Amino acid sequence: MQIIHTVQALREWRKTAGTVAFVPTMGNLHEGHLALVREAKKRAGNVVVSIFVNRLQFGQGEDFDRYPRTLQQDADKLAGEGVVVVFAPDEKELYPNVEQRYNVEPPHLQNELCGKFRPGHFRGVATVVSKLFNIVQPNYACFGKKDYQQLAVIQGLTEDLNFNIEIVPVDTGRASDGLALSSRNQYLSEAERAEAPRLYRELQAVAEAVKNGNLAYAELENAARRRLEENGWTADYVEVRRADTLETAHAGDKHLVVLAAARLGATRLIDNVEIRLD
Amino acid sequence: MQIIHTVQALREWRKTAGTVAFVPTMGNLHEGHLALVREAKKRAGNVVVSIFVNRLQFGQGEDFDRYPRTLQQDADKLAGEGVVVVFAPDEKELYPNVEQRYNVEPPHLQNELCGKFRPGHFRGVATVVSKLFNIVQPNYACFGKKDYQQLAVIQGLTEDLNFNIEIVPVDTGRASDGLALSSRNQYLSEAERAEAPRLYRELQAVAEAVKNGNLAYAELENAARRRLEENGWTADYVEVRRADTLETAHAGDKHLVVLAAARLGATRLIDNVEIRLD
Repeated sequence: MQIIHTVQALREWRKTAGTVAFVPTMGNLHEGHLALVREAKKRAGNVVVSIFVNRLQFGQGEDFDRYPRTLQQDADKLAGEGVVVVFAPDEKELYPNVEQRYNVEPPHLQNELCGKFRPGHFRGVATVVSKLFNIVQPNYACFGKKDYQQLAVIQGLTEDLNFNIEIVPVDTGRASDGLALSSRNQYLSEAERAEAPRLYRELQAVAEAVKNGNLAYAELENAARRRLEENGWTADYVEVRRADTLETAHAGDKHLVVLAAARLGATRLIDNVEIRLD
Repeated sequence: MQIIHTVQALREWRKTAGTVAFVPTMGNLHEGHLALVREAKKRAGNVVVSIFVNRLQFGQGEDFDRYPRTLQQDADKLAGEGVVVVFAPDEKELYPNVEQRYNVEPPHLQNELCGKFRPGHFRGVATVVSKLFNIVQPNYACFGKKDYQQLAVIQGLTEDLNFNIEIVPVDTGRASDGLALSSRNQYLSEAERAEAPRLYRELQAVAEAVKNGNLAYAELENAARRRLEENGWTADYVEVRRADTLETAHAGDKHLVVLAAARLGATRLIDNVEIRLD
């Protein structure tokens, strides 16, 4: 496994690499990332994993500075998964002009759900992923469903900007108590960690209710928020949406997703559960 | 020479094509375009020319509807230049969702010079060129210096979004009286056509004055505007800028460009002259 730090060296490697599957990450890898890598490995022998903590997608007051940087441990984990290249550029390599002048601008979806609470986040994601796509030029790129809105943005830009890349959505990895795996889980205190699986349980409860014919989404959403807040959470949102476009769900929609973001202390967690009504 | 109408067929062709040089156009080809094709041909045997009148880059009240569509004549000209593929998608092929949701957003430069008079124009250019880059995946792409601000936008997005493409700037083709070649010249009446070369002459006069040591750019710009308006033009702008970034020119800058846009009757013409002070 090679660790490559420059765009130029990555491009040199790419010239003769054949089919490539790509997993973009911010590092601090856990089992959820390794599940992405295993899906990538099914598509191509050549798996590239990028590790880059992307300043553009962090807002003011967010955790850019304290986001864990653990390149050596990450590389050890990836070597064990048969990854061929780790692409780990520093900031100047991806943003040589300091300011990113040309951005990939998502539609209004970027200001909804998580976007309402993280202005500019999805523009930053869309832009860095477009850059990485152009650098790595993969045939496949794997993204986790845990970041469901991010996945929708990536699918949208891939289609709209005609990237010749197949986007592979990968199911959310979970701890045995149901908590979605996330680098941010390590910010949780012991008590918060014990409480954290409630988020998934509440989303499951909404999904079950919908499957059982309760289509009063607003009531279900409010009830879930209330139960979270009764247990010490600050809920940013709980929303039932269409799974394909993330537009507001209406009666008759068959493929839905219930998404939530909520804070436990200083830690913001997100999760979602898909709902198929067939 | 093949004429290809779909993204999928173009991608199939591209798989085995090797090195490709690309010339994006809106068709209605003249000698200026053919000069781009000849530059492309120097870089690669495989030259792809796209012909697509891009609605996104036209504003309300602009000439999208009456822009000349002349595919058969264009193809005949390109066949004579050794072009290998003409890519001529229809609108639904490039904009299947009707609305383009994800756009490539240029920086403030998009609102200056021509951008001040054509809101959204450079976003439309940046977006369609990014799409075409992802479809054609060229090694080289040729753009005329006649559209100098467009060239700057393309160079900027190529760098910022890490497209693996060498942008080749090509000198402006001119009629024997100096008028820059443009599809829009055919909108001119006989009297307007006789007057039109004044634009280039005024830009040359500004460039000469600067080379002779007159760095009072604002006065030179105003004098050129005044002479145009005395001769029946409506001048959108005449400006001396830094050639590399198109930022405002300052004393000490060595590579400048004087750019202008001005209207004769209903027809808007643009032109520019580079200035090297060495």
